[in-house]
Amino acid sequence: MITNGKEIALIWYEKLKEEIKLLDKKPWLAVILVGDNPASIRYVSQKAKWAKEVWIQFKLIKRERGIQEEELKEDIKKLNNDETIHGIIIQLPLPSHIDTNTIINTIYPVKDIDGFTAINMGKIALWDESGLAPCTPSGVIHICKVNSIDLEWKNVTIIGRSNIVGKPLVSMCINEWATVTCCNSKTKDLKSHTQNADIVVLATGKPWILTKDMIKKEAFVIDVGFTVIDEKIYWDACFQEISENGNPITPVPWWVGRLTVLFIMKNTLKAFYMQNK
Amino acid sequence: MITNGKEIALIWYEKLKEEIKLLDKKPWLAVILVGDNPASIRYVSQKAKWAKEVWIQFKLIKRERGIQEEELKEDIKKLNNDETIHGIIIQLPLPSHIDTNTIINTIYPVKDIDGFTAINMGKIALWDESGLAPCTPSGVIHICKVNSIDLEWKNVTIIGRSNIVGKPLVSMCINEWATVTCCNSKTKDLKSHTQNADIVVLATGKPWILTKDMIKKEAFVIDVGFTVIDEKIYWDACFQEISENGNPITPVPWWVGRLTVLFIMKNTLKAFYMQNK
Repeated sequence: MITNGKEIALIWYEKLKEEIKLLDKKPWLAVILVGDNPASIRYVSQKAKWAKEVWIQFKLIKRERGIQEEELKEDIKKLNNDETIHGIIIQLPLPSHIDTNTIINTIYPVKDIDGFTAINMGKIALWDESGLAPCTPSGVIHICKVNSIDLEWKNVTIIGRSNIVGKPLVSMCINEWATVTCCNSKTKDLKSHTQNADIVVLATGKPWILTKDMIKKEAFVIDVGFTVIDEKIYWDACFQEISENGNPITPVPWWVGRLTVLFIMKNTLKAFYMQNK
Repeated sequence: MITNGKEIALIWYEKLKEEIKLLDKKPWLAVILVGDNPASIRYVSQKAKWAKEVWIQFKLIKRERGIQEEELKEDIKKLNNDETIHGIIIQLPLPSHIDTNTIINTIYPVKDIDGFTAINMGKIALWDESGLAPCTPSGVIHICKVNSIDLEWKNVTIIGRSNIVGKPLVSMCINEWATVTCCNSKTKDLKSHTQNADIVVLATGKPWILTKDMIKKEAFVIDVGFTVIDEKIYWDACFQEISENGNPITPVPWWVGRLTVLFIMKNTLKAFYMQNK
């Protein structure tokens, strides 16, 4: 049976803590939060909590929902040029009047903890490990590794083609020699792409798109997506029936969610070292 | 039936020619050729020929096979800083003592005509059209478009995971809303990934890996790969039997090969405009 992601994260946090504790100068992570989306506030507070836990200094910059793109760019440029700040995160989503891609690409690639800038994306595609890789896909690959799943020779089906999960994960799985299929909401006959998969990753935010009849008995399901409707959480997978069917399946909260935050801390330390060579 | 790629390229060359003829200053493309690999010499002469045809100025820089990485980087830096040069291509492959990725990433992204630098790769993944996209994958997408094949809702199987064809093509097809499968030499049961494909792209350089029994009758096959053994050319696909089977299939020389060179010229003009805004 699969091990608990929370525990794996805790082991890593211990290691990070020991390492950072010994540093004379500590890494600093700055997070910009625009508006007051409750989910964003929750995510930011998770980052603050775990940063503190491992001796990473945390700076929160709050901005009004109505902030203009130029002002936000100025905030980022200040952080880019501030030598005491090693990592910058713009909490997504941003209000619709702001172009997310432009904002993200204003961050210096060496401070881009989320790994969303074009150059960090490209480095993943080129299997160049000198960059900062996106944290959720890194978490997914880590889940496979801790479960001794070698992606070589495996069929991996990824449902979702977002810039933050689906696409970088496709590149990472290709690098690991998996045969990768990337599905989206315009995929004809989803089942034909999941039924032979050894690993299925769900990252759509659409409830219950994967049912037990769509996968092999031994397929490993990694659920990254969820939706909140009327304060109730729905996974992308029919978690209960797939789980009862005997398939190994990992839900978001104790798994990928935990590992995403872990990789944010790991990237912050990597960025710190890159800037203090 | 599919139209001839050579003719499509010629139509485009006419357009480019008309446009560039009217420019006061002409775009300049510099190509660095290391060693005397006969295939590389042939590719370079094709570039020179078509550049001349469309009024693009062409500069060839020849270097000995034994050149050191640092010297080659110096050559590129000179071209980067030369305002009269708008595009730079390093003819691949490079000798094994030189790190190809390092050399490619020395090119300024705005002069990177092949579109192989990390930032241009990342822009493709992010569907950011401000960069320069790799030419062979652009040719493949163009082949689909001129044949009125809308990739949305389609299953595309790409065999090959190289940085120059397979990987960027995966990103481009995902952007076009295709369901994309990327296979490699460690794919179990290749046929299971080709039999439901609407489009199969071959880019492996392994002879005859696709036979008629592996695909649907109406599948469109785009062959990008070939191998030369004892002076005989072998396609990746069993061209004859697939063609006789009634499948639309495009061989390299009159199709993708032509379009790759066309997109090199298109990228050079785009780079020229980016540098002369």
